[in-house]
Order: sequence, then C-alpha cells, then structure tokens
Amino acid sequence: MSKDRLYLYDTTLRDGQQTQGVQFSTPEKIRIAEALDALGVDYIEGGWPGANPTDSAFFDAAPTTRARMTAFGMTKRAGRSAENDDVLAAVMNAGTGTVCLVGKSHDFHVTEALGISLEENVENIRASIAHLTAQGREALFDAEHFFDGYKANPDYALECIHAAVDAGARWVVLCDTNGGTLPSEIAEITRAVIASGLPGDRLGIHTHNDTETAVAGSLAAVEAGARQIQGTLNGLGERCGNANLTTLIPTLLLKEPYRSRFETGIACEKLEGLTQISRMLDDILNRVPHRQAPYVGASAFAHKAGLHASAIVKNPATYEHVEPGVVGNARIIPMSNQAGQSNLRKRLADAGLEVEKDNPALPRILDTIKEREDQGYSFDTAQASFELLARKALGLLPEFFEVKRYRVTVERRKNKYDRMTSLSEAVVVVKIGDEKKLSVSESMDESGSDRGPVNALSKALAKDLGPYQRFIEDIRLVDFKVRITQGGTEAVTRVIIDSEDSNGRRWSTVGVSPNIVDASFEALLDAVNWKLIHEGAKP
Amino acid sequence: MSKDRLYLYDTTLRDGQQTQGVQFSTPEKIRIAEALDALGVDYIEGGWPGANPTDSAFFDAAPTTRARMTAFGMTKRAGRSAENDDVLAAVMNAGTGTVCLVGKSHDFHVTEALGISLEENVENIRASIAHLTAQGREALFDAEHFFDGYKANPDYALECIHAAVDAGARWVVLCDTNGGTLPSEIAEITRAVIASGLPGDRLGIHTHNDTETAVAGSLAAVEAGARQIQGTLNGLGERCGNANLTTLIPTLLLKEPYRSRFETGIACEKLEGLTQISRMLDDILNRVPHRQAPYVGASAFAHKAGLHASAIVKNPATYEHVEPGVVGNARIIPMSNQAGQSNLRKRLADAGLEVEKDNPALPRILDTIKEREDQGYSFDTAQASFELLARKALGLLPEFFEVKRYRVTVERRKNKYDRMTSLSEAVVVVKIGDEKKLSVSESMDESGSDRGPVNALSKALAKDLGPYQRFIEDIRLVDFKVRITQGGTEAVTRVIIDSEDSNGRRWSTVGVSPNIVDASFEALLDAVNWKLIHEGAKP
Repeated sequence: MSKDRLYLYDTTLRDGQQTQGVQFSTPEKIRIAEALDALGVDYIEGGWPGANPTDSAFFDAAPTTRARMTAFGMTKRAGRSAENDDVLAAVMNAGTGTVCLVGKSHDFHVTEALGISLEENVENIRASIAHLTAQGREALFDAEHFFDGYKANPDYALECIHAAVDAGARWVVLCDTNGGTLPSEIAEITRAVIASGLPGDRLGIHTHNDTETAVAGSLAAVEAGARQIQGTLNGLGERCGNANLTTLIPTLLLKEPYRSRFETGIACEKLEGLTQISRMLDDILNRVPHRQAPYVGASAFAHKAGLHASAIVKNPATYEHVEPGVVGNARIIPMSNQAGQSNLRKRLADAGLEVEKDNPALPRILDTIKEREDQGYSFDTAQASFELLARKALGLLPEFFEVKRYRVTVERRKNKYDRMTSLSEAVVVVKIGDEKKLSVSESMDESGSDRGPVNALSKALAKDLGPYQRFIEDIRLVDFKVRITQGGTEAVTRVIIDSEDSNGRRWSTVGVSPNIVDASFEALLDAVNWKLIHEGAKP
Repeated sequence: MSKDRLYLYDTTLRDGQQTQGVQFSTPEKIRIAEALDALGVDYIEGGWPGANPTDSAFFDAAPTTRARMTAFGMTKRAGRSAENDDVLAAVMNAGTGTVCLVGKSHDFHVTEALGISLEENVENIRASIAHLTAQGREALFDAEHFFDGYKANPDYALECIHAAVDAGARWVVLCDTNGGTLPSEIAEITRAVIASGLPGDRLGIHTHNDTETAVAGSLAAVEAGARQIQGTLNGLGERCGNANLTTLIPTLLLKEPYRSRFETGIACEKLEGLTQISRMLDDILNRVPHRQAPYVGASAFAHKAGLHASAIVKNPATYEHVEPGVVGNARIIPMSNQAGQSNLRKRLADAGLEVEKDNPALPRILDTIKEREDQGYSFDTAQASFELLARKALGLLPEFFEVKRYRVTVERRKNKYDRMTSLSEAVVVVKIGDEKKLSVSESMDESGSDRGPVNALSKALAKDLGPYQRFIEDIRLVDFKVRITQGGTEAVTRVIIDSEDSNGRRWSTVGVSPNIVDASFEALLDAVNWKLIHEGAKP
C-alpha cells in the first residue's frame, strides 16, 4: 500500500515566539532552524519580516536549509494594492521561496476587528495570494479563526479559502486561532471543507492548546484528510501554546494507524535526536525541562508504582507504549538500585573509567550524586564535574593545587566623562606544592567593556598556575548558564559553565551555592582540573 | 432536553501520587480532599490503604465529604479466597463506602506479569467484586490495559469486564494504563464495549498522557457513551500524567456540545475557584505553576501578538474561547517586541496610566521597548519596570534619589575552624536632595549563612533612604531569576526580581548587564522606585 505524504510545518520561530516570556535572539533562531532542518521538517516559518528587528535580522542571516524557509505576514490591507502595501512588501523582501499570509475567514472578525466589508476581505485574500504566485513564490494562506468562522457562517468561511486556492495558494491552513475547537468538531469541519471541493492534500491544520487537545485536534484533521500539520517544538506558542510537534512527530512515525498510512520528511532514526532537540530549546530559553512531557520528558518512562516497576523488569512492553531509546530518552526505575549501578557503570565507561561490577565505590558514587542533586547540582549536562566526582571516589583525582582564598570587588561609579561605569577586580591565591601564588585580574575586555565579576575571577584563576600554566592557556569559556533552583529567599544558584580548548574539545562543569560568585568559581575550578587531567598533567 | 449525568472521579491522591517526585503528607492529602469536595467532584480516590503508611494514615483521618471517598486496591490474588487475601483486607479495613479494585483484562499481562491462567484471573475479578458487594460496598473495577487487551484479544477483555459487572460492579473503568491509545481508538473500542451489552452509564474512562491526548481520549470515550471520567488535578500521575481534570472540568461545563448534553456534580460558579485550586496544589508540591496550562495558567489568557492584542481591546471574544474570569483567571496583555500601540495603551491603562490615542510618547515608548528587548530586556513579566519606563517617557517619573556609586566585595577564605567560607559586603552611596548617604551591609542571614553579593547589595540599598525609608521597609525579595540571554563570551545577564510588600502586593522588575551584579542592582532599583510611586512618596 502506498503511503500518503504528510507535511510538517514548524512555527517555533514565529508562533512559538508569541509565548509569554520568549524572545529569541538572531543567533538563537539560527540554531533552532538548523536543528529543525537536521530533524527533517518540511517548512520552517522563520518569523514576520518587518514586524520586529530580530525577525528581519534572522532572514538576512538565515541558514541555507533543505526545509523550505518561510516568511510569515498578513494579507494586504484594504484600500491599497498588494504591490503598494508596505507591510506585505517587507515580507516579500525577505526573499524566501515560500510565504505564508494570515487573513480572516470569520465574518465577525472582518467586520469587528478589520472594520471592512466581507467582499473587500475576500478581495484582499485573492489579490495577496495572486501577488505571491505572480512573484514565483509558493503561497500558503493561514485562514485565521476558520473553525469559529465556519460555525458562524460556513458559506463565507469557505468562500475565503476557495478564493485563496483559486488565486494559486499551494496550501490553505485551517487555523483554530482561539484554541477552543474540540477534536470532533475539527474532524467534522475538515470533512466539510473537503466535501466543498478543496482536496485534503492542499489542506493544513493549525491548532492551539487552550483545551489541551491541540495534538488530538491535529490528528483528527489528518484522519479527516488534511495533509499538513503546523506546530512548534515543545508546544511553545501564544497563550497555552501550539500543537506540540515534539509529541506529534513520534506519534506519526511510531504509532498506528499513522505509521502504516503516512510518510513524512523525517527519517525514523532522526527520532533518536528528539529528546536532545527538546532540551536544547529549553536550554536556549533557560527553562527547566518539563519532566512529564510525552516522549521526551525525564519522567516519560519513569515507572514509580511498585506493580509497574516489577513488571517492567520482566518485560518493558508491559508498561511502555514505545521503546524510550527510539526517541533518545531513557527508562527510569526510581526504586531499583541495580538499574542505578549498571547505568552508572555505563556512564563511567563513557568517561573512560572502566569500573568492575562489584566495586564498592559504585554505591558511594550513587549516594554522593543523590546528595548533591538534593542540594541543587545537576550532573545530566555537567559531564566533566560528574567525572571529577567519580574520580575522587575512585581515588583517581590528583590534587594539582589548592585555592587558599579569593576576593572579588565590583565597583560602580562615575568615570571622568561623568558616566556610570562598572569594573570588577579579582584576587585569587593558590598554593602549588609549597609555593603560594597571588594573581589579580580585572573584568575589562579588549573593547574596554566590563564583563563582570565572574570574568575577572576566571582570568585571575587562570593567570599563573606555575608548572600547569602551559596546559590551561587555551581554555576558553564558551557558555555560562545560571539557574535558581529554589524559589524565594532561600534561592540556591546553579551555574553551568561550558569550556572549550584549541583542540575543539568541549566540557561542562557545575557549581552550586546561594552565592552566585561562589557557584561560578566552583564550576571554573572543575573546568581547570578536568583540563589538567585530560592533558596528562602530573602534580 | 434532559441532560445525561457525567460522574467525575478524582485520583490525584492515588495515581497523582505516582508522579515522579511527588509524595503527599497526610495533612496535605486532607487539604486536597477538602478542596476537591468543595469543588464538587463525585468520587475522591484517597489512596491504597496498606500499600504505604501515608495512605493508611489518610483513611484513618479522612475528612467527611459529600463526595464518595474511595479506597483503591487490587483484585485478590490467585490461590486464596477474597476473604483471606490480606492485601484486599487492608483495603476493606479503610471502611470507605466505595472501593475500586484494579485487575487485569489483557491476556498478555495475565500470563506475563501474573503468571496465572486466564480463567483464574476472571475468577479473581468475579470473587473480589462479589466480596465487595456482599459487604455492602459500592464496587468499581479498574480494567488495567483494557484497550491494549481488547486489541490483542477482544473476547477475553470483554469477558473480564462482564465478569465484574455480573458480580455487581457499579462501574467498570476502561483504563489506558500505558497511555498509548489514541482518541479515535478509544472511541471505537468504547462503542464496541457498549455494543457487547455493557451500558455506557456503568462505564468509566481512565487515560494517561503519554501521547498528549489524555483529555481528548476522555472526551472521545464520553462521546462514545462512557459516563464516568477519571483524572487528576493539574494532570499529575505516573509517567506523563493522567487526564487533567483541571482542563476537563471547565471544558465539560462551559463548552459545546458537552455543556448542553451533560450535567455534573459541579456547579458552574464553583469554576471561579479552579485557578486557585490548581495553584494551591503547586504550592503544596513547591512547584512553579505551569504558565501555559489551559484555563488556569498565567499565560492562558495572555495576548502577545500585536494583531491579537489590538482586537482583544475591541472585543475579548475575538481571541478568547472562554471568559477568563469564569475560571478565576485573568486576561494579560504583555508588552514585548511584538506589540502595537493599542496593546501598549491597554497595558498602560492596566498600570493606571490613561494615555490618549495620538500621544507622541506612545511611539517613543514602543521604540524604547524594542531597543531594550534587543539588548536582552524582557518586559512580558517585568510589569513594574515597564511601568517605570513608560512613566519616564510620559514625564511621570519623579527622581526620588540618585545612586552615586556602589561597591560589593565577595571574599572566600578559611575561617577560624579552617573551613572555607564566603562573605559579601556592599556599600551603596545615594544622594537624596543635597544629602549624601553611605550605607553598608553584609550578606549573612539570621542563621549565619552567606546569601551572596546581591543580598548584601539589596540590604545596603534599602538600609537608609532617609525620608523614603518608611515606604520601603516592608519590601521583601520573593524571587530572583537569572538568565544569560546571549551565549558565549558576549553573554549578557538578565535578572528578574519579584518583590512583595506587607499588603500582599507583588511586582516584577528587570535589569540587564554583562555584569550580573549590575543587572541585579538595576532590577533592585526599579523595585524600590516602583514601590515609592505606588506609596505616593513625593521627592
């Protein structure tokens, strides 16, 4: 049986950016676009060129992708031609091969929000789509409020989308803009649209999660015949979010009846990167990943109930609907120490430390990790700090030097031009063997800008480590993440530092303290020690 | 038209407790049971008496509720009578009028997990349910893995649930234990069960969220004829959670076709307490409430896109599927890069600043916001900093005092017990009118722990503001969030501070700088200035 092709349209960079508190920078947008492209989505909606500076900058710098890069905008306004609408012109000027324009299809919105006649609105849709196709662009029409519009005035809603198709739109996307339409209504109305003469392979579905049914609504539309799904990674989006592609993609690829009936642009083995992509997005947003997220959450394959856990040991299929490894996730059995130890040995081997099965250090390491994680540490990403902790328990951690004390001063005052400026200064005192070394640095970078106290501290620590100096000269601090792990006044700060050296080696370390400078210093120290070990330095 | 009665069965205290990281205390269970009862659910499943000490203690102390308090357990084991099964006896001993027993209905699980014959399992179900009804208890049978079981062996799955009904079970609950069954399959199989002679008003549905369709699956079962829904508050539960009653309840009460077709035990006006109940549960669990949660999330009615915000001002129904007040939530129009002028005016009005449509300050404010957001600021959440920025542009920001300079020192060294300890000290110099004031504070809290440089700075700033001191004494820093907005060495730190005063007023401010101490100081300053304005302080 030949499979129907389903198209996946990602709008993380546009509708996802409508999430309260989310504002991507241009480099962040580029990173996300590259990850989406590597995954294999068909369309990447990059933003609304002209609507805000970051979106315009993104299209100027947009990476070359296999996926169709799409600019978003709105249909031309009444009273001017498509050619003379400056908002539409800015969208066209982004130069993408595909353009998606949103327009009204609900009579109430035409009269209430736009204040124009129903005929004028249809003409705006027609003229705008015709303008796109005349320019050789692939055109999508996002029919805003389509379902509410259809319920209020089915003839008018259909007239709007037929106008778009007649003008050359490749896709008409049925948008449940307010997120209030339930899956059974979505199915029914999608069938009615197809019955009106619009083929399903030109229909897309765009849902929101206001009733927690965005994923189910998308599936219902596909079952009714629609062949494009719009959504976002991690379900980001306006209000309660959009349909979650991080959930929909594995459901479509792994589960029946979809798996047998459809094919997408995503190869099954790409799913193994899904958990990582989801976490990367949370990292960019500095959000705590949602533990209970389907497929990719840390708890998605955690079996806590005693009944479940014991059956899982016999046969994982007893309590798992898919195999966790397929989506790059892992099974967790919180109660099972045995599972803990074999996991740990696997992880130690990854760090080059082969430890036998009954080594008494293994339970000690597990205890230390538990205790530290209770304090706010996280060793999931901070692989290098995990390795140092394990080495210590295994007696494999040399003491290269000792930090006797440090002091950082942050000062803000007026400079000679009467402008407020800040400067930080750090003093670090270390003892190497019998020798005491005092180093001092300040936080100014080459351009004369203040980079803050952690920068000063990092420079002072790495300034003179005597015999080790040659090993650490090429360490570069490439990323620095701060997270408050407990709310309120008892806040504890977790700092994760990513370092890199001239061999392109990259490692992550963690520090935790109520004092952010201390937490940073702990992570910096781990970074230096890890590097010394891997350079083969001898104390 | 007479309405069908739908029954709501809450399992927050049992399946909800299977959430990784969740363990309720007995008093917490009592608080939650009381809230559920006040809301008006029909059944409260309190736990598994005998399975763990808290559950047993809860039933001993359980509050008297209008809702039917239900004890959970499992069907008797093979090779002993229902009367002689000690696990079942512990469940009966809780003395609840209603008892729910889980049992197998999937042949694979009978042979694989239980290791007994298919006939023995049917007999265990029959004998256990008969035992409950003989004791005068209302009996529910949770048919574990029912949907997977039906797909594998429909006759056997049906035999199991018919045995329960024949033995007197009031309800048979079709459980999608692994959460892998999609809504259309749930509908189809539920219809098949009804066609087999089991009436819908004796059928319940119990779904999990492993494909993000637990809510839709419950609705599909109801559309197919089931009349009891099992779920949890905030969608707590094993792995990805159970069907979310916090979403299902307003959908059933407010939205068509449910609103016209069904009645529940929940009065419509009780919905106004829903947001509060959801937050109370998060408080108990010390979790940050999920902003994007349907109906009750802080972002559920946040309109960020410029197009949406301008229409909302004209008529809220344009972008809201229900009225936020009905579920005890509120509309938010956050300020951001995306926003247009009408959005801005609405937001200014929320802050008590009525500004006319063509005030030339409006585009200036928008420009400033855009520029600042490019630098890493975010005004979505930092409402108070937004207000100060707007007041400045409108000439409505008095200068209460001027910060001349500050200095913070962080020192780490050995104390007299030879342990490394840290201490921060801050000096802040302000000018109030012609008077210069120097204040110094350190970072030690009452317990002698170091709280870090920002704490010291905050204390020094608020130590002596002369004539303003009485207005700011009750400011309390309740939350502190740090985010690095650009990766790499050019990292810029964004700090968001939540403050609170003795009136319970809460406000958020933001600061941005490559220097985390500077960013924090900026947010602290905004917090103090906002408070002075709202106290009516005069310079």
